[in-house]
Amino acid sequence: MESKEISQAVISRLPRYFRYLGELKDEGIERVSSQELSDIMKVTASQIRQDFNNFGGFGQQGYGYKVEYLYEEIGKILGLDKKHNLVIVGAGNLGQALANYMNFERRGFIFKGLFDNNPELFGRKIKDMTVRPMEELPFFIRENNIDIAVLTIPKTSAVAVAEELVIYGIKGIWNFAHVDLNVPKEIQVENVHLSDSLMKLVYNINRYEQDGSI
Amino acid sequence: MESKEISQAVISRLPRYFRYLGELKDEGIERVSSQELSDIMKVTASQIRQDFNNFGGFGQQGYGYKVEYLYEEIGKILGLDKKHNLVIVGAGNLGQALANYMNFERRGFIFKGLFDNNPELFGRKIKDMTVRPMEELPFFIRENNIDIAVLTIPKTSAVAVAEELVIYGIKGIWNFAHVDLNVPKEIQVENVHLSDSLMKLVYNINRYEQDGSI
Repeated sequence: MESKEISQAVISRLPRYFRYLGELKDEGIERVSSQELSDIMKVTASQIRQDFNNFGGFGQQGYGYKVEYLYEEIGKILGLDKKHNLVIVGAGNLGQALANYMNFERRGFIFKGLFDNNPELFGRKIKDMTVRPMEELPFFIRENNIDIAVLTIPKTSAVAVAEELVIYGIKGIWNFAHVDLNVPKEIQVENVHLSDSLMKLVYNINRYEQDGSI
Repeated sequence: MESKEISQAVISRLPRYFRYLGELKDEGIERVSSQELSDIMKVTASQIRQDFNNFGGFGQQGYGYKVEYLYEEIGKILGLDKKHNLVIVGAGNLGQALANYMNFERRGFIFKGLFDNNPELFGRKIKDMTVRPMEELPFFIRENNIDIAVLTIPKTSAVAVAEELVIYGIKGIWNFAHVDLNVPKEIQVENVHLSDSLMKLVYNINRYEQDGSI
């Protein structure tokens, strides 16, 4: 694949394509046209073709796309054909929920460890994973080739812990702390600011009530 | 305030402004220039001024913005000065984590109830809230003026349950199910597709490893 600059907007849509194609594949559907995809996904067909053109097109217009091929290619683009070792840093409610809830393995993630600095949690088992003290992180990350840290600690310590994770060799942080991290640009960060998302919902509800439109 | 069309991109940035202004306010800072905000938030100063101009500007350039005033005004725009009654539908790991983890009250949300269809969970207490059977939802939503449903059930039932919630009178859905809901356009939906976000992180990690840039 050619290395060309692809916008984060296009990248943001790839997981959604991947999700829908996975569903079509599970239903045994072999081919799909950009128009059919457009109808299901509520994105224009021209947007779909334009997005796919960033990656070479994937198939001929009119004749449609091969679902399984497209699913696999998008998976490869996303890097889901490679394994990624992951730790959860913060074993509070949210960290525990993610450990239990996310089907990490299905997408090529290997959930390797769960860390906290609360001694009361040390040794507790969550989804067959023992909570370890944060002090073990530096050694653990190097020893287990951990790529990704899921950061589920309070915002007061998140910035400092993120900086340490970078020193230990992490490549990406999935950040749930309500704070923007300050890490070098070669470290990838994906923020999930849950309360921002809820505030946006409230804005849209109020807006609709005020003038009946968005 | 004039009712003019404001893009979802601007709206998406409002909670982040609100968050940063809240921090400045907590630190006792009274005035901030768009340049200072720009430095902290890593958004250009002209972007900030442009965003604020959508809402009438908020203050004179050069002299800076009054932090507390700006914080309150953005809060009002977001609708956080109003109370919103909220229920969580799905008391599994994620529903329980959100019940425990989110500081709903701080932002004007009133957490009213937690529902599930698993009889084993009925009566269990999560953050002083008893898990109720889904059958009680229609009555409960009407009786308690519930605006917002947090949807934390598996994707197999999410579409159908969302349609029911609409019938019961819900105005907005905060959707954690890995599926796009099919609700009338007057119902506001904010999706949190956690696995999409993780996939995007992996894409950016791989991309950086391949060609050292994003």
